[in-house]
Amino acid sequence: MAPGSSSRICPVKPGAELVTTGAELLNGRTANRHAQTLGDRLGGMGIPLLRDTTVPDDLAAIEDAVRGAWSRSDLVFVSGGLGPTSDDVTREAVAGLFGAKLVTDEAALRNIHARYARIGKKLNASVERHALVLDVATVLPNSAGLAPGERIERDGKVLFLLPGPPREFLAILTEHILPWLEQHASGIRALRRHVFQVCGLGESDIVSLLEPKGFPGAGVDVAYCAQPGRVEIRFAADSGNESALDRAVGRVRTHLAAHVYAEDRSDLETVVGRLMRERKATLATAESCTGGLVGHRITAVDGSSAYYLGGVVAYANESKIRDLGVPEERLARHGAVSASVAEAMAAGVRARFGADYGLAITGIAGPTGGTPDKPVGLTFIAVADAERCVAREHRFNGDRALVREWGAQMALDLLRRVLAGLL
Amino acid sequence: MAPGSSSRICPVKPGAELVTTGAELLNGRTANRHAQTLGDRLGGMGIPLLRDTTVPDDLAAIEDAVRGAWSRSDLVFVSGGLGPTSDDVTREAVAGLFGAKLVTDEAALRNIHARYARIGKKLNASVERHALVLDVATVLPNSAGLAPGERIERDGKVLFLLPGPPREFLAILTEHILPWLEQHASGIRALRRHVFQVCGLGESDIVSLLEPKGFPGAGVDVAYCAQPGRVEIRFAADSGNESALDRAVGRVRTHLAAHVYAEDRSDLETVVGRLMRERKATLATAESCTGGLVGHRITAVDGSSAYYLGGVVAYANESKIRDLGVPEERLARHGAVSASVAEAMAAGVRARFGADYGLAITGIAGPTGGTPDKPVGLTFIAVADAERCVAREHRFNGDRALVREWGAQMALDLLRRVLAGLL
Repeated sequence: MAPGSSSRICPVKPGAELVTTGAELLNGRTANRHAQTLGDRLGGMGIPLLRDTTVPDDLAAIEDAVRGAWSRSDLVFVSGGLGPTSDDVTREAVAGLFGAKLVTDEAALRNIHARYARIGKKLNASVERHALVLDVATVLPNSAGLAPGERIERDGKVLFLLPGPPREFLAILTEHILPWLEQHASGIRALRRHVFQVCGLGESDIVSLLEPKGFPGAGVDVAYCAQPGRVEIRFAADSGNESALDRAVGRVRTHLAAHVYAEDRSDLETVVGRLMRERKATLATAESCTGGLVGHRITAVDGSSAYYLGGVVAYANESKIRDLGVPEERLARHGAVSASVAEAMAAGVRARFGADYGLAITGIAGPTGGTPDKPVGLTFIAVADAERCVAREHRFNGDRALVREWGAQMALDLLRRVLAGLL
Repeated sequence: MAPGSSSRICPVKPGAELVTTGAELLNGRTANRHAQTLGDRLGGMGIPLLRDTTVPDDLAAIEDAVRGAWSRSDLVFVSGGLGPTSDDVTREAVAGLFGAKLVTDEAALRNIHARYARIGKKLNASVERHALVLDVATVLPNSAGLAPGERIERDGKVLFLLPGPPREFLAILTEHILPWLEQHASGIRALRRHVFQVCGLGESDIVSLLEPKGFPGAGVDVAYCAQPGRVEIRFAADSGNESALDRAVGRVRTHLAAHVYAEDRSDLETVVGRLMRERKATLATAESCTGGLVGHRITAVDGSSAYYLGGVVAYANESKIRDLGVPEERLARHGAVSASVAEAMAAGVRARFGADYGLAITGIAGPTGGTPDKPVGLTFIAVADAERCVAREHRFNGDRALVREWGAQMALDLLRRVLAGLL
């Protein structure tokens, strides 16, 4: 996303900040997912999340981080450290900054006792600490746990205090905070958004196809996010710039055309699944270098058993011959990593499973096994149907994991293109 | 981990800070994993990570965050925004703070051209921006991508600049930064460390087995990290407490015994691969609910073709019958998700591939497909060898992805136990 573009399209000034507390987020133990969760939800309302500051469970560090966020932003979220142990000091830090006292919230206390009663567990006194809240706060009940959230308003600004466990964070956010913001946050404007998923072009290819032509146009915000084998393009514009957004969206459709596999957040396996269902067709897979990743991705879709029959992981050449009917002579002449063998694998697995489509992949994932002729990363992908067999050659950069990830992605994309009649 | 426990074993004052840049980390698109990765690796050296500040690709925000980190800490890491597009402004922000100029690094440029040549792709001019570095920096080559890392030393402090893609971040961190810190960072004390990987016990099981007995002992730091199907236990002690560490390590070996699958950072597929090689044995897999994940994990190990022959993804019942020889009558009587069918799959794939071991898994991944008798999460795993077939029943909690992840992990663990003679 271009610098400043968030603030350009997001009228809430200056946007929100998050302070995340917890030693486990900085010592390698846990990934911090709160920024993603909060950014996603706030973004949906047109409020940009402008900063996440993660600090350990340390009173001075939390005070410093919250003070900084409060000085920059009208809307501050603070998460974590509301538990019962001595390292849960967030409420003390925030109380200190606001000159507030900690008091027991009776409703929160009743919730704690009720939850313990439900699981028949004895409650020790420290657990009641969960019910401590700032005397200046509005309490936000926690339907998923013990410590309630809190809302503190001062000087036209708002601070929300949230528990750290992701389920509780999300529950209070969606049940209490987002509805409140919808009603009370001033300056929230409706944003129109559009998203594209692209496979088969790199980020710089896309930029060079789109951008020399005055793209995306004034008032339209665009961001690119590249991952192995795909690029997501995201647009946003406020209501005054809808026609500019339409033009930008149209330009993507025209110039990227068949490389676009979705105009929502779907992944390739979901798109392929949708195409398979539309065609009432069935699929079988034959994998060598990916070892099962293609099948694993296809079956990540609930209900994939309606079209996916199964597959063969033909890692050894004997399996390619025995289970897929690859002619021994082809393996000898072209080698296991060749278009000719990929085609035979696709046709072979299609025949074995009696499927409408056969999808095959064979490649050199590395780090060993490469030769000057056939370097690490060389991969062949083939799709067979009743009439023909389409094969593609790829050369992927990266380590073993990345070559395999790229391979599975490009295999699904080749299948998508065949199913969609693009090849 | 209790507050202060990191600092107890981490003598470097005041510790490191990270500034992570990227709009995608704040708009819900991507989880920020850099703090976890860096915190883990620095923690391993006794250097605590004290703060992560995440900001969008905005010049002023990046400058502000880097300035703050540099004012508080002697060791600052800045990641992301080193790409070719107009929103990649991190190097400009850091150059501004250090009064440095951007120059093209010839070695980085050669690397870019070489990588493009390898995949036979045309290079457009914007790609060369990856090679821009600060004229005051030492360049750290990027073995996993295009933009190099950089090290900037000033006033006895150090700033490292790293690309955002996680693989590249990790490559430069492990290849260039950690070795440099080992040599140059003052105040790093020799810590003795020990790590265990445990499968088959949960975190609270482990704690209750170990901790009532004065565990881990004074001067020994312990941390638990739970992930689906495994718990990592990490110990650290400084040189004065080596015998206490030895006692703690001994206690884990005694009490957790066969549940420990590694005393290093190896994953289960690596451990299984080692056992297969030692036994000069071969393996084939039969997967239903995991759709290929078990095979994919086994083949994640370079050289796995020495023992892994391949497998069948028997998603449809017809494949279980045709390709694995599961008796139709068993499927009818017990259902596809049963110990009896898992056993037949394991024996069947072993026979088909002529392997020494057959590993099979069948389960209900959900969210649909569960019944009161056979709920979502119910999974059967079996290992067959020449003499016998061992089957295990599991009930996993979680969504489709989690049930499949648990399944693959427990399948590899069952194979490990059989190979190691523990069952």
